[in-house]
Amino acid sequence: MLNFTFKNQTEILFGKGQLSEVSLRLPAKAKVLFLYGGGSIKKNGIYDKVNTALEGADVIEFQGVEPNPEFETLMKAVQVARENDVNFILAVGGGSVIDGAKFIAAAVNFEGDPWDILIKGAAFENPLPVGAVLTLPATGSESNGNSVVNRKETSQKRAFSSETVQPVFAVLDPEFTYSLPPRQVSNGVVDAFVHVIEQYLTYPVNAPLQDRFAEGILQTLVQEGPKALATPEDYDVRANVMWSATMALNGLIGKGVPQDWGTHMIGHELTALHGLDHAVTLAIVLPSLMFVQRDKKQEKILQLGERVFGIKEDDKDKAIDLTIKAVQDFFESMQIKTRLSDYDIEKSAIDGLVENLERNGLTALGEHGDIDLVKAREILTLAA
Amino acid sequence: MLNFTFKNQTEILFGKGQLSEVSLRLPAKAKVLFLYGGGSIKKNGIYDKVNTALEGADVIEFQGVEPNPEFETLMKAVQVARENDVNFILAVGGGSVIDGAKFIAAAVNFEGDPWDILIKGAAFENPLPVGAVLTLPATGSESNGNSVVNRKETSQKRAFSSETVQPVFAVLDPEFTYSLPPRQVSNGVVDAFVHVIEQYLTYPVNAPLQDRFAEGILQTLVQEGPKALATPEDYDVRANVMWSATMALNGLIGKGVPQDWGTHMIGHELTALHGLDHAVTLAIVLPSLMFVQRDKKQEKILQLGERVFGIKEDDKDKAIDLTIKAVQDFFESMQIKTRLSDYDIEKSAIDGLVENLERNGLTALGEHGDIDLVKAREILTLAA
Repeated sequence: MLNFTFKNQTEILFGKGQLSEVSLRLPAKAKVLFLYGGGSIKKNGIYDKVNTALEGADVIEFQGVEPNPEFETLMKAVQVARENDVNFILAVGGGSVIDGAKFIAAAVNFEGDPWDILIKGAAFENPLPVGAVLTLPATGSESNGNSVVNRKETSQKRAFSSETVQPVFAVLDPEFTYSLPPRQVSNGVVDAFVHVIEQYLTYPVNAPLQDRFAEGILQTLVQEGPKALATPEDYDVRANVMWSATMALNGLIGKGVPQDWGTHMIGHELTALHGLDHAVTLAIVLPSLMFVQRDKKQEKILQLGERVFGIKEDDKDKAIDLTIKAVQDFFESMQIKTRLSDYDIEKSAIDGLVENLERNGLTALGEHGDIDLVKAREILTLAA
Repeated sequence: MLNFTFKNQTEILFGKGQLSEVSLRLPAKAKVLFLYGGGSIKKNGIYDKVNTALEGADVIEFQGVEPNPEFETLMKAVQVARENDVNFILAVGGGSVIDGAKFIAAAVNFEGDPWDILIKGAAFENPLPVGAVLTLPATGSESNGNSVVNRKETSQKRAFSSETVQPVFAVLDPEFTYSLPPRQVSNGVVDAFVHVIEQYLTYPVNAPLQDRFAEGILQTLVQEGPKALATPEDYDVRANVMWSATMALNGLIGKGVPQDWGTHMIGHELTALHGLDHAVTLAIVLPSLMFVQRDKKQEKILQLGERVFGIKEDDKDKAIDLTIKAVQDFFESMQIKTRLSDYDIEKSAIDGLVENLERNGLTALGEHGDIDLVKAREILTLAA
């Protein structure tokens, strides 16, 4: 096992009705920036419930954080927060809104150009506290310090991470996910699945507990994910998916083990250049990355196949093929197609993707740093 | 899944050499109460390492916290802390020392008789911060707010729990466990195993992820526990046991599911009246409790048997018997005997144990509150 430090400060408020706990956790004389996305919360009633829960606090709304949150949009929210002397940000939505809230929290009291936080890792002081009401289980953003921000004008997707902007609380009410469109349910399950894979499917370091935890999340997602599509208002199914997605990226399962994240890095370019949903990019890249890295990942791929997908096959090469197929089948069972051609992206687009990786300095990806531009091209070509 | 709130504020510093991180985490002008047990840390070098790590801080030592920490002893430490205006407690040892540190932390600024904290749940203010350097993985005390204190003069063992005395950091260096006597290794593994069982072996509430996590810890302990006895200086084995014991009782796996704790409650009386090691009492009580509660716990006992011990048996009654036997065999493989008679406790002692349960108001134990004094007697009689 590798050395590690671990702490997770987010208070999870899990279950029906937990939104009512929020008011007890706001600062004195709360001036809350109520941040949300495209407005679906107005249709499904969550908007009204949040306003009820915030009764008594001074609330300023900011609507319109988009999927893959845009730097320009977030800077407008920073302006609103500054003008109104906001002292708390309540993010109501999925990973994009919560990621956006973290960036706003860091940017409000930042004196230079806040883009530097993302591009140069610039230090920031006195971030605002953030709370989260999760409506889309997927990214784990509700209980980690990670934030990914998109900038269309430069086709860049950049991340920063800081414990200081991690939500102080996160409301996880499974009922808030009942009205999600199937596409978002699919994306969330696949996103969480690949988060686990990035922290698990590397090489063994004799860390059996981390392996069991990772496998436990994968097994739960494989079992519950399709049910979430089939029976959207099954409370327990929604609860199990929600808790799995949070545990997938709250920092725990990746402690003491190597991590990969190559699938995410290559996938980010597909979002930046072609606008694909984040989870879709993962479903496209992962199977091909597994194929290309099959020797280096051999032991863990075999373990994944056996323990998560119940594959019993003595021939290692066949077992690896079956496992990659099982992963692909799982994505397809979640209604997400796994080839570039399924999204009308031609082979000729691969050049641009590889160039973007190079431009962003992403030339040594994966747990061994051996996914260079040649291998990245190989992976993308396999996924064509 | 049941509703829950969860937060764990302890920063885990895991691995070789992590003790050096401690000095960065002490308060300014630190006046540290360095609390430890019987002095084994002087023989194995940890004492010197801690002093090196604390260089520059003002350190007051208190030696002599015993297993099942005594109220009288802890009150002496409270006196020392008060006289020296201590502002931080560093507990170096196993669960008893850390439990003791929490009680001292709560008692130092308590104005009445601190026994009231244990016996009446009296509120306390301004507890001292506690840090932990773990030398015996077992109780999980290093990252939870629980404290159990013994009082010989009244044959009472009482607990309190508060996030405010939970360690702010915990150093988990597997090398610090190399020199543990085999008896303590055995106790630690069995203790952690039963902690998981108390949060798992109840009835299903459709919480598959919690089940998988619990099973993952049990599987790891079953696999690594005997190795820790056989090859004491295998770093990874020690690391896996240590991380399992922490995860067993840091609050995570019991969230959203029913909990039992009947084995602990009955076991506590065996320690209070007969001085048995805590883990020994659990190994004695659990198999008999499983037998007596076999109908109510049927589904989870079958799941435990199949998933953790690999039992494949269609006849449910036989499968339950085999699973209870497997648990007993595991304890015996850890060199812990599972009958009262193995410790020269006669059947005639059962009356006194049951009376003590009654005196402490422990007359409705278990996840259904149905382990009354009649059932407790049945369990103890089966364990004779």
